[in-house]
Amino acid sequence: MREVAIIGIGDTKFGELWDMSFRELGIQAGLAAVADANLTGEEIDALYVGNMSAGKYIEQEHIGALIADYSGMARDHIPATRVEAAGASGGLAFRQGYMAVASGMHDIVVVGGAEKMTDVGDVLSTEIQATAADQQWETTFGATFPSLHAMIARRHMFEYGTTREQLASVAVKNHKHGSLNPKAQFQKEIKMEMVTRSAPVAEPLGMFDCAPVSDGAAAVVLCPLERARKYTDTPVKVLGSGQASDTLALAHRNSITRFDATTMAAKRAFKQAGITAADVQLAEVHDNFTISEILAIEDLGFFPKGTGGKATQDGMTALGSKLAVNTSGGLKARGDPMGATGIAQVVELVTQLRGEAGKRQVAGAQIGLAHNVGGTGATAVVNVLGRVN
Amino acid sequence: MREVAIIGIGDTKFGELWDMSFRELGIQAGLAAVADANLTGEEIDALYVGNMSAGKYIEQEHIGALIADYSGMARDHIPATRVEAAGASGGLAFRQGYMAVASGMHDIVVVGGAEKMTDVGDVLSTEIQATAADQQWETTFGATFPSLHAMIARRHMFEYGTTREQLASVAVKNHKHGSLNPKAQFQKEIKMEMVTRSAPVAEPLGMFDCAPVSDGAAAVVLCPLERARKYTDTPVKVLGSGQASDTLALAHRNSITRFDATTMAAKRAFKQAGITAADVQLAEVHDNFTISEILAIEDLGFFPKGTGGKATQDGMTALGSKLAVNTSGGLKARGDPMGATGIAQVVELVTQLRGEAGKRQVAGAQIGLAHNVGGTGATAVVNVLGRVN
Repeated sequence: MREVAIIGIGDTKFGELWDMSFRELGIQAGLAAVADANLTGEEIDALYVGNMSAGKYIEQEHIGALIADYSGMARDHIPATRVEAAGASGGLAFRQGYMAVASGMHDIVVVGGAEKMTDVGDVLSTEIQATAADQQWETTFGATFPSLHAMIARRHMFEYGTTREQLASVAVKNHKHGSLNPKAQFQKEIKMEMVTRSAPVAEPLGMFDCAPVSDGAAAVVLCPLERARKYTDTPVKVLGSGQASDTLALAHRNSITRFDATTMAAKRAFKQAGITAADVQLAEVHDNFTISEILAIEDLGFFPKGTGGKATQDGMTALGSKLAVNTSGGLKARGDPMGATGIAQVVELVTQLRGEAGKRQVAGAQIGLAHNVGGTGATAVVNVLGRVN
Repeated sequence: MREVAIIGIGDTKFGELWDMSFRELGIQAGLAAVADANLTGEEIDALYVGNMSAGKYIEQEHIGALIADYSGMARDHIPATRVEAAGASGGLAFRQGYMAVASGMHDIVVVGGAEKMTDVGDVLSTEIQATAADQQWETTFGATFPSLHAMIARRHMFEYGTTREQLASVAVKNHKHGSLNPKAQFQKEIKMEMVTRSAPVAEPLGMFDCAPVSDGAAAVVLCPLERARKYTDTPVKVLGSGQASDTLALAHRNSITRFDATTMAAKRAFKQAGITAADVQLAEVHDNFTISEILAIEDLGFFPKGTGGKATQDGMTALGSKLAVNTSGGLKARGDPMGATGIAQVVELVTQLRGEAGKRQVAGAQIGLAHNVGGTGATAVVNVLGRVN
């Protein structure tokens, strides 16, 4: 396989973006990434787009061609491919783009992710998010995405003594990080009591334990590492990529307090990168609920199983610690436009590894990890990136 | 890039399969392909699934993980990825699986395609199919998939003198081929008058000019060519793969009587394969409407522009001629379960190149081409396969 570099990044603000359509979001992020890579459009060989459910959100499938068309890439008839794995759609699109370059099939590949979630009401949006779960064994019986995660949280509290405040400390930290990110949906710090006393969604999870409904898009440009210096002085290398699956329904697993797909994806990515969890200085992990980040930092191997809540409360994942988790604000504060999320994670890592993260910069960052989850852990993808010195 | 072979194929019957669910269809095809490749499940490294709109048809996204789960592959946590490009979803999934093996990322890859269309009513089904067109510039104004293709047909008749009977001759031929395929949705021959007098859908297209609404699934197994003989005595090699995009809306193109994406995809695939259109002995092309096959055989370079109708009427694409088109029965008679179609085309080519096609066998077939289209030509993918002698 050829070595692959990221040479351009772009993203939109995340939030309730009433005045922008799905296609406008995708184009804005894509063109920003192309400009950042100092590319003329003619050099682009292929496009990948991560998107979860535009069919249901905006009555539009065929998303790859749509974005190729309205960004002008269809003029050169470039291949355009949509990838879907619920909330992990962006991370998987990145991985497909990576393989397209690594294989030698394509040289310059744009990978974008986009979702427009606020064009439907909140009830329908909850229904759509639940299409990531098992229609036959979960959603048919009334399970929603928050209620499934509430069960995971309850069980984690039972098995490991994780506390309500430890859950809440994830949100407090990520809002603090988000306050330093001008692209974040929420840029205000919140206090512990705001989380623990927030309106219950599915107990023990309250409103501030849940990532918001968001519109947004993000994009990156990939090319063979050996050509990267032609386009940028600060290429970032893809060190490893791992992906794994698990049963769609939680009930079909041996344990619901760990996501084996996360562990397997990380193992595969670390093996390819030739590193261990201890080598990672910053990680964007899939905190769609506060409990999700606790599972993630345990399952990725950053902290022993059962200790993720305490580690978070003790500040061991905050900016300034040895491992900074979700410096962007994470899904919780940066926002979670499903298909865009996995790409936005990569954008944050590249920003950090370039040393361009401003007030939220992780000093001397060399290796970053992006962890993107679909459903309740039926898909996980881990992409490991490194600074090129 | 590593050379890649197809070592296993499997498919379901296509039709109105009321007694099978989406997941059952996917599993049946996948397990058949795995058995055909003489694989134990443990050897499988990754899964790709082509699917257009399970979110709208069966309220289920996250299709890769779903099929991995219910086929038992999630036990080994294999990566499972869904690819979508409307009617070209299967062809694109094949291409991604091909790249995954070619890159060296994975060795044994299963690529499936599936769609369950008959769980919704015909009106909703028509609405869902229209999500392949441009929501903002076509479907909002009432355009459906048949009406868009009717415009293409009218214009082709105007520009090139293509006749109603020439259109109908596509359906007559493909039903004749389908009558020789025990997996086809329609296994009865039809007469010219049945097509030309069939109930109008969108004039000039009648009911028998349109591919049916279908349930079904198909799957193939890929591996590096150098290992293929371990699994099969009749490996089939991937000679080339090309993909291209175009504007989503017909109105934004210079011409609607040609699909430039088809021409570009073919050009790229032929270049990689080192062949020309004249080297192809059998082709599965995207005949979702009779006019579509006429465009396809022109745009692929088999016949000069404007002469596809006459060539078909003259029998130049029938079994027994120099070029056999849609020996499976095509989308018209074999059936068109959107996401499955592109994989079913590959299954037919492999069956032919192995010499296992029975009554519809193309004698001495060495090179076959699969042509899969999304929307009204905004996506096209061409995969060229060759017999390994």
